[in-house]
Amino acid sequence: MDKEKKGLVLLSGGLDSTVTLSICRKSNIEIHAMTFDYGQRHKIELDFAKWQAKKFNCKSHKIFKIDLYGGSALTDQIDVPKNENVDLIPNNIPVTYVPGRNIIFLSFAAGYAEYLDLEDIYIGVNSVDYSGYPDCREEFIKIFEKTINMSTKKGIEGKKFRIVAPLQKLDKKEIILIGKNNGVDFSKTSSCYNPTNMKKCGLCDACLLRKKGFDEANLDDN
Amino acid sequence: MDKEKKGLVLLSGGLDSTVTLSICRKSNIEIHAMTFDYGQRHKIELDFAKWQAKKFNCKSHKIFKIDLYGGSALTDQIDVPKNENVDLIPNNIPVTYVPGRNIIFLSFAAGYAEYLDLEDIYIGVNSVDYSGYPDCREEFIKIFEKTINMSTKKGIEGKKFRIVAPLQKLDKKEIILIGKNNGVDFSKTSSCYNPTNMKKCGLCDACLLRKKGFDEANLDDN
Repeated sequence: MDKEKKGLVLLSGGLDSTVTLSICRKSNIEIHAMTFDYGQRHKIELDFAKWQAKKFNCKSHKIFKIDLYGGSALTDQIDVPKNENVDLIPNNIPVTYVPGRNIIFLSFAAGYAEYLDLEDIYIGVNSVDYSGYPDCREEFIKIFEKTINMSTKKGIEGKKFRIVAPLQKLDKKEIILIGKNNGVDFSKTSSCYNPTNMKKCGLCDACLLRKKGFDEANLDDN
Repeated sequence: MDKEKKGLVLLSGGLDSTVTLSICRKSNIEIHAMTFDYGQRHKIELDFAKWQAKKFNCKSHKIFKIDLYGGSALTDQIDVPKNENVDLIPNNIPVTYVPGRNIIFLSFAAGYAEYLDLEDIYIGVNSVDYSGYPDCREEFIKIFEKTINMSTKKGIEGKKFRIVAPLQKLDKKEIILIGKNNGVDFSKTSSCYNPTNMKKCGLCDACLLRKKGFDEANLDDN
């Protein structure tokens, strides 16, 4: 392992962040993972995050508990929308959008990376087969990187942070194929926005996009 | 009161944020306050924040509890530096710097403002008589405003957030005089980084800068 290279991975326990973690493991760096317990409905994610962090041999894994406000179907008493199939997902920002979520997560990541004295922050955002959240787009990632480099001790002292989003331009099928190749156990990842008794609903945007990806990759999702 | 105008104030319970709150009250808007309990040594701030939110008639006040990492003398087992007088404060980023603190606070504020459906976020940062933290400078505030307007639903739908920092270019004396004029009770604000039994230490950067301000304003700090 390259002792000099370290990375911090935002690991939700979902499919995308787990594939991102598998990419880091392939590159043989020292991996630190961080996960947020923010009152999400899909708490099963947290157990999967722990499982994957262990499986991919992370040097450390910390779950941060944070108080969030409501305002999203993922955290509040608002129904998660269901659609018959992926082509019927409306083309706007859905009610599952959590205001400010990725800004908050990446801000914590920047501070924690500074604390751990590392520069590379990995995040599994992508904006091809996604739910239309504005904080998953490449423009956001770029400006956020600039922001943290202006507002942290490390950044202004010249050791620049990089936000690495290896899945940014990939579609779900491509992400799944990379994960498969890297030995990801998909049965230990959760995508559903509204699972019941650990079972996915099959009808939320995230379930539909995941199903489309597995269909196109000609793989079973289990 | 102008029912249409609302603002969210980041209220720590310190001198600067309390003066910022008094400025909002003068402008007669509907005020929502938010405070963070992040494991700071100077927890007395939280009680003062509650007291000031009530005194200045905030419509709501919420304290967010967040898990932070260590790495700062404000949250960790690192000694808070003491100096004999204000001219001896070294000209570098001190160990009281909390990695990523203002990025995290402002990210939460952006998400919470979106939840409350308001656009103006007030913060008491200033960069004249300050401890040299990079996340208090005007360049940071400007780029952060741009960032949240690109990464939130409200921002990309055209209702732009503004981060208002009315104290940005003021020195401590000017800040204190505005507060005095607005009826701030300074005895219910805390600046000290390392108080013992609710008593300020008198020797940390924050105590020295506060003392300098009161001396120059010809006022007693009580």
